[in-house]
This record gives sequence, structure tokens and C-alpha cells, in this order.
Amino acid sequence: MSVSVFEHPFLRALLGDDAVAASFTAAADLAAMLRFEAALAQAEADAGVIPGPAAEAIARAAEQLVIDPGELAAAVSRDGVVIPEFVRRLRAAVGEPYAGFVHKGSTSQDVIDTSLFLRLKAASQILLARLDALVAGFDRLSAEAGARTLTGHTRMQRARPITLAHKIAGWRDPLVRQKARLPALADNLFRVQLGGAVGNRAELGEAARQVADGVAARLGLGPAPRATHVERDSICAFGHWCTLVAGSLGKFGADIALMAQNEVGEVSIACGGGSSAMPEKNNPVGAEILVALARFCAALQGGLDQALVHENERSGAAWTLEWMILPQQVVAAGAATRTALALTDALRFPDPA
Amino acid sequence: MSVSVFEHPFLRALLGDDAVAASFTAAADLAAMLRFEAALAQAEADAGVIPGPAAEAIARAAEQLVIDPGELAAAVSRDGVVIPEFVRRLRAAVGEPYAGFVHKGSTSQDVIDTSLFLRLKAASQILLARLDALVAGFDRLSAEAGARTLTGHTRMQRARPITLAHKIAGWRDPLVRQKARLPALADNLFRVQLGGAVGNRAELGEAARQVADGVAARLGLGPAPRATHVERDSICAFGHWCTLVAGSLGKFGADIALMAQNEVGEVSIACGGGSSAMPEKNNPVGAEILVALARFCAALQGGLDQALVHENERSGAAWTLEWMILPQQVVAAGAATRTALALTDALRFPDPA
Amino acid sequence: MSVSVFEHPFLRALLGDDAVAASFTAAADLAAMLRFEAALAQAEADAGVIPGPAAEAIARAAEQLVIDPGELAAAVSRDGVVIPEFVRRLRAAVGEPYAGFVHKGSTSQDVIDTSLFLRLKAASQILLARLDALVAGFDRLSAEAGARTLTGHTRMQRARPITLAHKIAGWRDPLVRQKARLPALADNLFRVQLGGAVGNRAELGEAARQVADGVAARLGLGPAPRATHVERDSICAFGHWCTLVAGSLGKFGADIALMAQNEVGEVSIACGGGSSAMPEKNNPVGAEILVALARFCAALQGGLDQALVHENERSGAAWTLEWMILPQQVVAAGAATRTALALTDALRFPDPA
Amino acid sequence: MSVSVFEHPFLRALLGDDAVAASFTAAADLAAMLRFEAALAQAEADAGVIPGPAAEAIARAAEQLVIDPGELAAAVSRDGVVIPEFVRRLRAAVGEPYAGFVHKGSTSQDVIDTSLFLRLKAASQILLARLDALVAGFDRLSAEAGARTLTGHTRMQRARPITLAHKIAGWRDPLVRQKARLPALADNLFRVQLGGAVGNRAELGEAARQVADGVAARLGLGPAPRATHVERDSICAFGHWCTLVAGSLGKFGADIALMAQNEVGEVSIACGGGSSAMPEKNNPVGAEILVALARFCAALQGGLDQALVHENERSGAAWTLEWMILPQQVVAAGAATRTALALTDALRFPDPA
Repeated sequence: MSVSVFEHPFLRALLGDDAVAASFTAAADLAAMLRFEAALAQAEADAGVIPGPAAEAIARAAEQLVIDPGELAAAVSRDGVVIPEFVRRLRAAVGEPYAGFVHKGSTSQDVIDTSLFLRLKAASQILLARLDALVAGFDRLSAEAGARTLTGHTRMQRARPITLAHKIAGWRDPLVRQKARLPALADNLFRVQLGGAVGNRAELGEAARQVADGVAARLGLGPAPRATHVERDSICAFGHWCTLVAGSLGKFGADIALMAQNEVGEVSIACGGGSSAMPEKNNPVGAEILVALARFCAALQGGLDQALVHENERSGAAWTLEWMILPQQVVAAGAATRTALALTDALRFPDPA
Repeated sequence: MSVSVFEHPFLRALLGDDAVAASFTAAADLAAMLRFEAALAQAEADAGVIPGPAAEAIARAAEQLVIDPGELAAAVSRDGVVIPEFVRRLRAAVGEPYAGFVHKGSTSQDVIDTSLFLRLKAASQILLARLDALVAGFDRLSAEAGARTLTGHTRMQRARPITLAHKIAGWRDPLVRQKARLPALADNLFRVQLGGAVGNRAELGEAARQVADGVAARLGLGPAPRATHVERDSICAFGHWCTLVAGSLGKFGADIALMAQNEVGEVSIACGGGSSAMPEKNNPVGAEILVALARFCAALQGGLDQALVHENERSGAAWTLEWMILPQQVVAAGAATRTALALTDALRFPDPA
Repeated sequence: MSVSVFEHPFLRALLGDDAVAASFTAAADLAAMLRFEAALAQAEADAGVIPGPAAEAIARAAEQLVIDPGELAAAVSRDGVVIPEFVRRLRAAVGEPYAGFVHKGSTSQDVIDTSLFLRLKAASQILLARLDALVAGFDRLSAEAGARTLTGHTRMQRARPITLAHKIAGWRDPLVRQKARLPALADNLFRVQLGGAVGNRAELGEAARQVADGVAARLGLGPAPRATHVERDSICAFGHWCTLVAGSLGKFGADIALMAQNEVGEVSIACGGGSSAMPEKNNPVGAEILVALARFCAALQGGLDQALVHENERSGAAWTLEWMILPQQVVAAGAATRTALALTDALRFPDPA
Repeated sequence: MSVSVFEHPFLRALLGDDAVAASFTAAADLAAMLRFEAALAQAEADAGVIPGPAAEAIARAAEQLVIDPGELAAAVSRDGVVIPEFVRRLRAAVGEPYAGFVHKGSTSQDVIDTSLFLRLKAASQILLARLDALVAGFDRLSAEAGARTLTGHTRMQRARPITLAHKIAGWRDPLVRQKARLPALADNLFRVQLGGAVGNRAELGEAARQVADGVAARLGLGPAPRATHVERDSICAFGHWCTLVAGSLGKFGADIALMAQNEVGEVSIACGGGSSAMPEKNNPVGAEILVALARFCAALQGGLDQALVHENERSGAAWTLEWMILPQQVVAAGAATRTALALTDALRFPDPA
């Protein structure tokens, strides 16, 4: 146990997902923030908002600057947000005469949100690849063993016979739908955030749209006609996509745990978990974890959606709530896909009697 | 106060939505169930599964049968689900020699789910029309008064000036996105449910797909290549759509309550709520209700998504959990749209000083 | 399905609890509100705040007045709260010269909260009696059959043998703890609410404490040194007590559903649920309902606790959120106790082999 | 942003609580586990279950053994729980001839739960001291400035005047109640967990109760007549206590954010947060964080209470869910108390006009 199982020295191996969690380190955040500031300066130079040499100096400094995240703690504690100190350091690295051109027309939320969207995009690509692998794994299982007959169970009681292929289809098809749902979500979410102090891009004047489009293009994000500082629906929709991924795999886990009961014996797990009191036991640990991750992600959704209620032009309270919740949902979905892949490989269906 | 504010004799006027709630009466449910049984019989006759005259008799009986919902209580208490008694009554109404052809190849979940999908479709059309009206209302407000200047507020403090049009855009655009999200949801959800006892359509043999498509076509639902008895992601996605609608309007409500503070005075509400102790007060009741509905819907989402963990070929526990939650989310979203429409009409922006 | 399963004409028989729900009808609310106004007037007369004949007239009118809840809808829709119209009607019933003494020094929240606490107290007594009966039932089961041996299961796998008595103790002891937790909760919660317009009892001046104590004594509630208009922790604690009741019984339900699996056969249920497709099945409906109620109540808790964040001297948003959630939790806990009692009676343990 | 704000290199300074989080490090967990194994061996020697020299050897090894948490990851990933590898290492450290006496009669959950209870007890003492300090701080504020007059606000509108003392009492009194609630919770929760493989202490035979009492006494925990492997109500009640602490402080934060609005000006904050775009702003960061922590903790409660539904003699799924949630709630409550203390010190009430 630790504050977060996803960062725990040993529980992380069981319940976490280092590949997805890599998107949520402070270092990854700072790196993406620096990319944003560089792209902003370059796009502003392209639009004539700042001098070209200033943009070059900023881009160069952003590429080279390494910030020790821990050194920012005191300033964050004072300012409530990392950007003032982050910008101060970047300005110091840029030096005169261009320091004053750093972060021009931007605000904390622009940097932090854009960094988040960049990293969610990266994480979503891992999740998508995992979904592909899971669908392929279920297809393989179905091809290999799908014809065998199981007892269908409804409401926890034996009902009529089904094939294993029928069961597998119920695990697989929701994943296919999650895959199909991602592009529309991504199209809304993986966009540049650029609004300035109160979200209306006033500081950039006529050049605002050109700058925003330029930043987006340089970062591989979609363009944004307006800032979405206060419109958090696409963020909540992405959290819910993670919940649907984890939840669909929770159903797979629940089924495996039920099927692997000694009294049922419809499946065995090649590498189940050990017991300290009964070494001979073979616990369906991966299956149980899938259920736990599904329920965890679902409960978090009930919190993330509270952040839709966002006051005026920026809510510190609602925005902070997102920080507390969303990364955990993404990593939980990642851990669910990782666990499900391992579990799928470990399933052994007994030979038909 | 009552068990549900949505059915309370007087709180319903404040917090409910009778138009949307009409989809969730027992009478509406029974009517949709009868439509399903009629369509099933007709599609089965078309596919040669049952005799044509049986289908005619069933369709005629289904059209004429009126069931007093209260009379079903004892059977539901005994069986745990309404369908056995419902089918018994429909069979009695059909009479011999065709009674035995009622409900052929179907199971409780087919009837209950399909009825739900039909009624969610009807409710979603009301919600969509309300979203259209809200977007139009915000556009009208923006055209009339959007040019006036307000003080932007970030983190509960005065920041830079904004236009009212900028503020309104932050209320409007999420609704435009919700409208855009509905078709894909509808396409996955508003489909026929037909799976038979264990969801594999075994009872209908070769004719299964033709029967399913026929039922779908007769009911104006989409076809379903397989039953989704155990795949509840599209149901949870619809619940989340309602949460996004209510949550987006919760942000509107939060803003209005803040702007209408006496000390701020950026808006007044033509018909605010009265006080028993201070009759002169003008409370922003509609705005507060929008916040409450948003938070309510969000919390329910954390419960609905628990129902993704569905055991084997049918989970009584997970399925029942949906019954408890989803209708409340849809009506909450309805009440939010209804309240927001009234609030939009009541907003009065003071003349610029 | 309906907006609320607890008020549905037939699902209520399965999932509801009419005895507990009786505390949450509009009629029960209005009756308790009238009791409050009568007690307030009488206590104010005792304290010399209003004339004795005024109190007599108010008490008499409050006893005789019958208000059709539906007639209040329009006013509630306008005022956002029922009390202005409620007081208007009570004043009309009192008539001159005493009408003006009705509701003196009080505010909407005083009436609505006190009515709630009175009704929660009544509901808690039903729940407590049910817990007593459940503990007795489990003791009886244990005495009758506790010595027989079952297979203990950990992590969904067979482990070492246990006695049925051991299993039953795990269902029983949490209920004993819930019983033990109630008095402290009740002591904090079942108190008079009396604060006046902004919660400081200013309108009652020096007599405030005497009046508050007098109202409390007349209503059988505890005294309150201060109003708790904005301190909602005891309300949330009561909701959580309901969640613990429902959750503890959810564990009982989960066990019974697992033990009643055909493959396990550790228990059978005398009156399980029927199936429309497979009449011979015996579904553990009561057990599944217990799981569903537990999960429902838990999810609602995540919403109720959001209402702790209460703005200034009264939050319309947070207060309304309580109205939406708490009654459902209490009735869910009631339904869980009712269902568990019936299930306990229906359990049949097979003779040992 | 990071997976968990509570372990993030710089957000932790803003949103975390290192003092409380110290209870949830892997090192603290392992240390407490070792204390359990030592106490178990000693109590077993006292009861004649194992030889005295074995207990001495185990206690000595437990005191000296230092385990690198990261080295356990591979085994945890394989076994699903840390105890098999933990016991293997402790046995290796004990060496022959006593290695076999390590962990006798115990199971994974005994070690992990007891370690948790020990650490929750330590964390609760920090929280309790913070509540004491907060109550004292509010009393001091009230003594210094309580007499000044503010405008009471109900439903976001100006109502009647109140004193600052009245407002402060609404922040303070819920904390007094939380303090009063802790002893009963502690009495139920801070007990030894000892049940053996299936929770019935069968492995310890007649000596079981003596051993359990001995372990409890050595660890400063309460005795436990039975194991509570499957009865998680007291854990959920502790989580809810944390939610009530955080939620009560969320109301304080919401009030301060409203009072500190420029247009209201009822309070200023000596050390508010900075803005990257508007350096002159003074954001009520601490107040906003209190709201965010309250909503976060509340949402998590909706997940923790799902873990009440615990299957049979041990549920891997429900137990794992606790690990994911409870530490976050405790640290969130800690962070709320820490933030509230700093905020209380920073409040400046303007001189009355």
C-alpha cells in the first residue's frame, strides 16, 4: 500500500502501468511545457508578434533547459501553479534581450492544458495499441478454442449451453467499440489550448488565430478556434473512455474469476497468484485486479464529472480536481489493458470431457 | 422531499421534467414491451418461425391489451423480473391456439432492454430539441447583448475584461458538442436487443438474424448482429452523455449564480425565487438547481459505470443497478435543459454604466 | 423501470420499501412541517415571544390543515422552495388576528430540515428494528445449522474448511456494529433546526435558546445550541450509516449468490426468481438485489458528500443535492434490510453428504 | 500533474501532506509488517505455540531486516500479494532451525491489514492534532475579530447581517464533531487482524485468542475476538471520517473564496497565489484547494464503499480496491488540514468601514 498504487515500488508491478504512467511524470510534463513555449514563440514569430531571433532563442533554450522538478516545489506552494516559476526559469535561460518574449499572450492554463493534451495523446496511442492486441488475442483464442461448449450462466445459475466463442465475443466487441470511439474524442481533445489571461486571446489581437494554428501544427495537435479553459466536457469524455476500457475489461475479469472457480473449472490460469498460507492455491489475481481497476475507474468518473462545474473564466477548484483524478483513470485503463493481455495469454481451457 | 424529487408532487415542478420522465413510467414501459412482442411475432412470421395467423393474433392482442402496472407487483416480487407475468398475461389475451407462440426465442432481457432503448430514443429526441433551443437562445442573447463588457474572473478574482459574447460562447459550445456526440451514441445504443436465454439466439436457429433485423425495422431501431446482454458500454456512454449535458449546464448555472451576486451585479434574473424570511430577496434558484443537477448526475455516473462489471451471460445485480440509476440521469439531464431554457429567458443584463 | 424504482408500481415490490418510504412522501413532509410550526408557536408563547392565544390558534390550525401537495407545485416552481406558499396557507388557515405570528423568527431551512430530521428518526427506528430481526435471524440460523462444514473460499478459490457459523458471523457482526453506531449519529442529527434567516437566531433575540429548546422538547428531538444550516456532516454521516447497512448486506447477498451456484450447492433458496425463457430456473434474485442496493447506496454517498461544500449562510445548490440523494439512500437501506430478512428465511442448507 | 498529486515532485508541495503520506510508503508498510511478524512470534511463544528461542530469533531478525521495496516487485507481480516473498525473506533472515516458525497460523491479509491499521492509527493522530490546532486557530480568530459585522449571504444573495464569530462557528463546530467521532471509530478499527487462511484462526487452535490478544497488546492495538477479513465496515467508516474532515474544510474554503472576491472584500489572504499572466493578482489558492480536496475525497468514498461487497472468505477484487482508495483519502484529509491551517493564519479581515 502507498498513497498511489500506481507509483508504489512493488504494487506498481501488479497494479500499475509504467508505460502509460510515463506520460504523467513531472519530467514529461515539464518537457511538454517547454515544447509548448517553443512552439508558441515560433508561431508568434511566424505571425510577426515577436521577433524571429527571439523565437530562435526561446526554442533553443527550451530544447536545452533541464529543470529539476523538485526545485519547483517551493514556488508551486507559493503560487498555486507551476507556471510563474517555470516561465521565470525559461526566461533566465533565454536571457536578454529576448527573455521578455517568453510565454507572450499565454497563461498558466494554456501551458498546463496543452501539455496534458500532448501527453494524453501519447498515452492514448499506447492504449489503442493494447486494444488492438487484445482484440487480436481474443480472436486467436476464439479461433483456437471457440468451438468448445460451456454452460451459459444467467443470474448466477446454470442456463443453456454456449460456445466459448460466444463468451469471447462478449469480451471482444466492447473493445472494438472503444477503438471506434477514440477518433472522435481525440479530434475534440487533442487540440492546442491557447486563450491568454481570460481565455479570449485578447493579448494576441488580430494574430491570435494564426498563432494558435501555428502552435497546433508544430505540436501535432488539432487547431482550436477558441480556447476551452472552462469547457471541460472533452476531458471528462476522455476520462469516461478510460472508464469504459477498464470497465469492459472488468467484465472479462469477473467472468474469468467465476469460470476459474474450482467447482466450475471452465478455465485455468497458467500463472495465478500464490498464497502465504496455502502455497498450493492458484489465485486468479489478474482477473480480480481487472475487477478492482474497473470499479476504481468508475468511482473516479463520479469525481471527474464534478469538474464540469467550472466557475467563470477559470476555476482553481475544478481544475485542480482534474489533476487529482484524470491521470489515475488513464493509468488504471492502461493497467487494465496490460493485465488483460497477460491474462489472455495465461488462459488454459481444459480439454472437453 | 420525497424518495425521488423527479416524482414528487411539488418538487417535481422545480427539479423534474415531466416530458422526459414520461419515457420512464411503468405504462410507457409496458407499452413498449407490447410493441416488442408484436414486432417479434411479426418478424418471426416473416421468417417462417411461427405461423402468420399467430403473429396477427399476437399483434392484435398486444395492441389492445392494457395492463394495470400495479397488478404486476406480486409477480415481480416473486420472479424478480416482470416478464414471466407479462408474458402470461399476453398469452392469456392471445388465447389458444396461438398463446404458445408469444415471446418465442426471447428472454426477459430482450424485452426489457428493447423497451428501454425505444424509450431512451424518445427521450433523447426531447433532449436534442432542448439543446437546439438552448443553442438558439444563447445565440440570441449573444446577438442582443454580446458586445457589452464584463470583468473576466479567474480563480474567483477579477482579471481582465471580456465581452458577454465570450462568456456565452463558453456556455453554448459544449452544447453544440453534445449535439454532435449523440448520433454515434444513438447508432450504438438504439438497436434491437434479441438474444434468447443465454444471448446466443440459439432458440431461433438459422432465422435468428432475419428475425432480429425484422424486429429492429418494425420498431425503428438499428439492427444488431449480436445481442448485447452483457456488453453495457453503450448504455454507460449514454448515461455519460446525459452527465455531460447536465454538467455543461451546471457550469452555466454556477456562472449565473456568481454573476447575479448583489456585489457583482453582472446579471439579474427576472423571476428569481422567494424567501420565507426575506420576501424582498430574489434567489437565483434556477442557477442553483443547474449546479445541483450537474453534481447529482456526475455522482450517479460513478454508480452506473459499476454496472459494466457484468457476470457471465446475465448479471441480475449489475442489470438492476442500471434500472436504479439510468432513468434518473436522463430525467436530470432533461430537468437541466428545461431549467436552463427558463433561466436563459429570465436573464437581464444591466445597461452598461 | 421508472424514474425511481422505489416509487414504481411494480418494481417497488421488488426493490423498494414502502414502510421506510412512507417517511419521504410529500404528505409526511407537510405533516411534519405543520408539527414544526405548531411547536414553534407554542414554544414562542412559552417564551413570551408571541401571545398565548396566537400559539393556540396556530397549533389548532396546524392540526386541522390538510394541504394537497400537488397544489403547491406552481408556487414551488416560482419560489424554489415550498415554505413561502406553505406559510401563506397556514396563515390563511389561522386567520386574523394571529396569522402574522406564524413562522415567526424562522426560515425555510428550519422547517424543511426539522421535518427531515423527524422523518429520518422515524425511518431509523424501522431500520433498527430490522437490524434486530436480522441479527436474531442469523443467530437462529447459526444455532440450527452453524455446525455444518463448508469449504472456505478465498480469492474465488477453494481454501480450507469453515463452519457455517463462521460464515454467518461475518454477515451478522457488521449489523451489530451498525446498531451500535446509530445512537451517536442520532444524538447529533435528530435535533431541532432553528436559525432564522441567516442561521444566527437574531430574530428571536434573547429568547432564542429557550424557543429552540422548547420546539425540540415538543417534537421529541434533541436540543441544538446553534443552528446547523451550513454544517451538514451529521446528515452525510447518516447517509453513510445507510450505506454501511446496505453494503454489509451486499456482502451477504454476494455470498449467497456464490454459494447458491449450481456447481457449488452450499445453499438453496426456497423462493428464488423465475425466468421467462427457462421456467425451471431458480434465480437468487434477493441476493442479487442486495448487491445492487449496496452498490447504488455507495455511489450515492459519493454524491451526498459533495453537499458538504456549502456556500456561505445557505447553499441552494448543496441543499438541493441532499434532497435528491439522501431519501434514496435511506429507502435503499430499508429495502436491503427487508430483502435480507426474506432471504434469510428462504435459505435452505443441504444436508451434509 | 502526475499519476498522484500526493507523490508528485512539485504538486505535492501544494496538494499533498508528507507527514500523513509517511504512513503510506512501502518502507512504512514493510516496517509495520515486520513488527507484526515479531509480535506474532512472541505472542505465540507466550502461548506455547512456538518455542521461545524461535520467537527471539524472529523478533531479532525482524528488527534488523531491511528490505528494499523495489526488489519485491517481481514477486508481487507473480503472487498478486507481497506476503509470500516477504515471508520468504524473513525466513531467510531468521535462518534455521527457526525459519519455519515465521508467520505461523497467519495469512497475507493478517499482515497487510494489521500493518494498515497500525499506520492508520499513526496518521489519525496527526489528523487529530491538526484538528486541535484548527479549532484553536478558529477560536483565536473569533476572539480577535469575531465581533465585526459581515453580510450574511443565503442562496448566493445578500441577506441579513451576521458576525464574523457566527461564520467562524460554522467552520469550527464540524471539526469538533469530527474529533468527537474518532474514538469510536478507532476503537473498532485499530485492532489486530489475525484470522489465518480462511479467517477462523483454525491453525492456532485453542491458543488462538491468547495469541491474538498478545499480538494486539504488543502492537498497541485493540484486541479482536474474531478476524474481520471480510467485514470492512470499519475501514469504510474511517474513510468516511476523512471525507467528513475534508468536506467540512471544503466548506471553509468555499466561503473564503467567496468572501475574498474583489467585489465582496470581506477577507483578504496574506499569501495568495500568483498568476503567470497577471502578476498583480492574489488568487485564493488555498481556499480552492480545500474545495478540490473535499470533492476528491467525496468521490473516492463512492468507490471505497463498493468494497463492502466482499466475496466469501477473501475478495481479491474488493481488497485491492481498498488499497487504491483509502490511502488517498487519508492523505487528502491530511492535506486539507494542512492547507486550512496555513489559510487560517493568512486570513486578514479588513478594518470595519
